Amino acid sequence: MQTLSSLDPDFEKRFRRLVNARREADSDVAGQVSDILSAVKNRGDAALVEYSQRFDGYSLIDDSDWVIPRERYAQAYAELDAELREALDLAATRIRAYHEAQLPTDRDYTDDAGVRLGAIWRPVDAAGLYVPGGRAAYPSSLLMNAIPAKVAGVERTVVVTPTPKGNSNPLVLAAAHVAGVDEIWRVGGAHALGALAYGTEKIKPVDVITGPGNAYVAEAKRQLYGVVGIDMVAGPSEILVISDGKSDPDWIAADLLSQAEHDPTSQSILITDDAGFAALVEDSVAVQLSQLSTGKVAKASWDAHGAIIVVNDLESEAPPLANRLAAEHVELALDDPEPMLQSIRHAGSIFLGRMTPEAVGDYVAGPNHVLPTGRRARFSSGLSVLDFMKRTSFLGLDEASFAKIGPAAATLAHAEGLPAHAKSVELRRK
Amino acid sequence: MQTLSSLDPDFEKRFRRLVNARREADSDVAGQVSDILSAVKNRGDAALVEYSQRFDGYSLIDDSDWVIPRERYAQAYAELDAELREALDLAATRIRAYHEAQLPTDRDYTDDAGVRLGAIWRPVDAAGLYVPGGRAAYPSSLLMNAIPAKVAGVERTVVVTPTPKGNSNPLVLAAAHVAGVDEIWRVGGAHALGALAYGTEKIKPVDVITGPGNAYVAEAKRQLYGVVGIDMVAGPSEILVISDGKSDPDWIAADLLSQAEHDPTSQSILITDDAGFAALVEDSVAVQLSQLSTGKVAKASWDAHGAIIVVNDLESEAPPLANRLAAEHVELALDDPEPMLQSIRHAGSIFLGRMTPEAVGDYVAGPNHVLPTGRRARFSSGLSVLDFMKRTSFLGLDEASFAKIGPAAATLAHAEGLPAHAKSVELRRK
Repeated sequence: MQTLSSLDPDFEKRFRRLVNARREADSDVAGQVSDILSAVKNRGDAALVEYSQRFDGYSLIDDSDWVIPRERYAQAYAELDAELREALDLAATRIRAYHEAQLPTDRDYTDDAGVRLGAIWRPVDAAGLYVPGGRAAYPSSLLMNAIPAKVAGVERTVVVTPTPKGNSNPLVLAAAHVAGVDEIWRVGGAHALGALAYGTEKIKPVDVITGPGNAYVAEAKRQLYGVVGIDMVAGPSEILVISDGKSDPDWIAADLLSQAEHDPTSQSILITDDAGFAALVEDSVAVQLSQLSTGKVAKASWDAHGAIIVVNDLESEAPPLANRLAAEHVELALDDPEPMLQSIRHAGSIFLGRMTPEAVGDYVAGPNHVLPTGRRARFSSGLSVLDFMKRTSFLGLDEASFAKIGPAAATLAHAEGLPAHAKSVELRRK
Repeated sequence: MQTLSSLDPDFEKRFRRLVNARREADSDVAGQVSDILSAVKNRGDAALVEYSQRFDGYSLIDDSDWVIPRERYAQAYAELDAELREALDLAATRIRAYHEAQLPTDRDYTDDAGVRLGAIWRPVDAAGLYVPGGRAAYPSSLLMNAIPAKVAGVERTVVVTPTPKGNSNPLVLAAAHVAGVDEIWRVGGAHALGALAYGTEKIKPVDVITGPGNAYVAEAKRQLYGVVGIDMVAGPSEILVISDGKSDPDWIAADLLSQAEHDPTSQSILITDDAGFAALVEDSVAVQLSQLSTGKVAKASWDAHGAIIVVNDLESEAPPLANRLAAEHVELALDDPEPMLQSIRHAGSIFLGRMTPEAVGDYVAGPNHVLPTGRRARFSSGLSVLDFMKRTSFLGLDEASFAKIGPAAATLAHAEGLPAHAKSVELRRK
C-alpha cells in the first residue's frame, strides 16, 4: 500500500505511475487458443470430447455427461436454504426491474423533407454465457449476465461451464433456474467458447458471448470478437472510495477490502481530505485483514496495489483524479454526493452516500455488476440489455422526398467516383 | 453470378453455401502489426517518422509535415464547386439531425424500496477517425464518422490519414470542415492507430477509434480493442434487394451494381418471386456493367458473389432467407414494404419502397452508412452516437432502503465466500 499526498512535490509523478500501472498480465496463450478454436470449428463435438478429457479430466460420453437438464436446476433451487432462496429471488427481481427500465425505444418518424426515418431494436437470437468452474463460479454473475439477455428478449440463453469431476455448484444451478437459462452444457475453457461461436453437432451456435473466465477464456473471446458479439475485455476489479473525515473508518476499510478480496491483482484506492481519517482507515484495514478468511488474497492486493491519497480540497481535487483513474466502482461516502456525481465523468458505477457500500451493488441493487475495468470506463459501459440487442435503421422515400434529396446523393456519388451509386438515383429521377 | 430457385431440390444446400461463403480474406499481418504498435508505444514520434518514410515515402520533419491546419480545410470547403458544397451541406445537416434524435436519455428514479437508481450517458473525451488515402478516402465516410462523435459531445475529434506525396483529397478536407474535425494528422497505416491509442509526444491519445482501412488498419484496430473502444470489424459491403416483378429492372440492376462497384469482394443478391423479372434484371446488369467506369470491379464482384434467388411466395419465403443472410443493406422494392420491415429481424439498414435506392442512404438520408457486414447484423448495429458515449450507472441508499435490501446482499456474499463484501454490509447494520 502506498500513501500519496497532493501537496507532495512528486505527487503528479507518483499519481501518474499509479494510473498507468498495469495490473493485467500479458498471457501468451494466443497460439494455443487459436489452435483450440480451429479444432472445434473443424471437428466439432469430437474436439470438445478430447479437450474436456485433457483439460478437465472429464469424459463426455452419454447425453447426461453433456447437459445438465432443467429439472436439475429447478431442484437445486427448491433445495436451497430459505434465506438464500429469498436473497436470490430479491436479487433477480431487482436486477430484472432495473434492466427492464433500460430497454431502448424504437423510432419511426417523418421529417420535414417527407423522408420516413427510424430504427428498430431487436434481441439477438441466442446468447452464450461462460460460467467458470470452482471458486469463481458466482451465482450473482449468472444473474447479472442471464437476466439482461432474457429481458432483452433473447429466446435461447446457453450456459457453458466446466464440471471437472462432474461436480456443479448448486447455488449457480439455482441461479440458472431463477434467471430462466435454457441450456447448460458441461464444457468449459476456450473450446467451450469455440462451440458457442461456431456451433457443433450438439451445441447450436449463439450470437453473443458474455461472462468472466481465465486467461484462455478471455483470449478466446478476443479472438472470436467479430464472429460473435462479446461483452468486454475484463481485467482485475477495482474500487475508488472518496470520503471526507466523517465516515466510519471501519466501514470504509471494509469497502476497500471487498474489492481486494477478489484477487491479488484487484485495486482499492481511498481519496480523502483528512489525513487523520486516512490513518484510521489504514489501521482498520490491518485489523480486518487479520480476521478475514480471504485475508491472504486481500492482503496481497492491498499491499501491492492499494493506495490512500490525501488531498487538500476534496471537492475540487477528487473529481479530476477520479476521472484519470476511471475506476470500475466509485463510492462517494459524503453527506451530499450530488456535485461529485455530476463532475465525475469516467466511472463504471457510482455509489452515492455513506449507506451505499459497493457490495450492495454487487448483489441486489439492480444495476449490472459487470463493469469496465482497467480505465476502460473512459470509453465503455457496464453490461446492459443493449449488449444482447442490435439496432436496424430504416428509411423510406416517396417521389416528392426523393426529388428533394436524391440529386445531392448523385452529386456526391459522382464526386466519389462511384457511378453505379449515381445511376441508381438518376434512373429514378426520370 | 448464380441463380437459385427455392423449388430446386438442392436449394437448401446451395443457399447454405451462399450464406456461409467467406468473402473476408484471412490476412496474415498480425505479427507485423503487433511489432508496429509496440514500436509506436515505446518510441512515439520517432517510430511514426520511420514508418511514414518506409510505408508512404513521406518525410515528417517540420510541423507542417505533420498537421493539416484548420484554415486549410476551411479553404478546401470555400473552394468547392457550389453544387458539391450544397450537397455536402445537405448531407451533414441531415446526418446531424438523425443522430441528434438518437441521443440517449439519462435515468434517475427512486423505486418502491426507496433505492435511488439511474444511469448517466457521457461522451468520451476524444475520438480518432481513420481516413484511408487514395481512392477509398470518401468524404461521406468522414461525415458519417465525425458527425456522430460531435453530436455525442466529443470535444476532440482527430483524423489520421496518409498523404503519400503530401497530397490530400480536397473533398475530404471540405468534409472535415463541415463536420467540425479538430485535428488532422498526416500519418496513416497501423502506426497511426498506435499513435491514437497510446499517444505520442505530438499526438495526444484518444478513447475511441473508428473508420475504415486496409488489412493492416483492420488488424491494428482489432489488437487495440480494449486499449481503446473501436467501432466494428468491417468486411466487404453487401446488398440484398427483395423485389416483386413490378419494379423497373434497370433500377434494381443499378442498385445491385452500386454495391458491386465498391470492391471485388462485395456481394449483391436479389430475391424475387418473378423469374421473368429476374431475367430482365440479369440482362440489365450486363448492359450497365459494360457502361460503368467501375465496371471491372463491379463485374468481378457480380461474377464471383452475385446471386439471384427466385422464390415461389415472396411474403413468406423472403424474410427467413433475409434473416439467414443478415445483410448490411436490405432494399424492399415493394408497394407495401411494411410487413417485411416487421418480419426481417437481422439487417444493418432497411430501405423501404421502390423510391429508396440504397445510395440515398449512403450519402444524404441521415442514418449512418457504417453498418455491420458479413452477417454481423445478427448481433451488431450501425455506427451511432452510442459508439462515442458510455454509460455510468449509479445507486444510492439511505438507512431505510439499506435495511430492506442490505441483508440479502450479505447473505449472498457469504454464500459466495466473500466475507469482506458481507462485512461492508453488516457493519452498517448496527
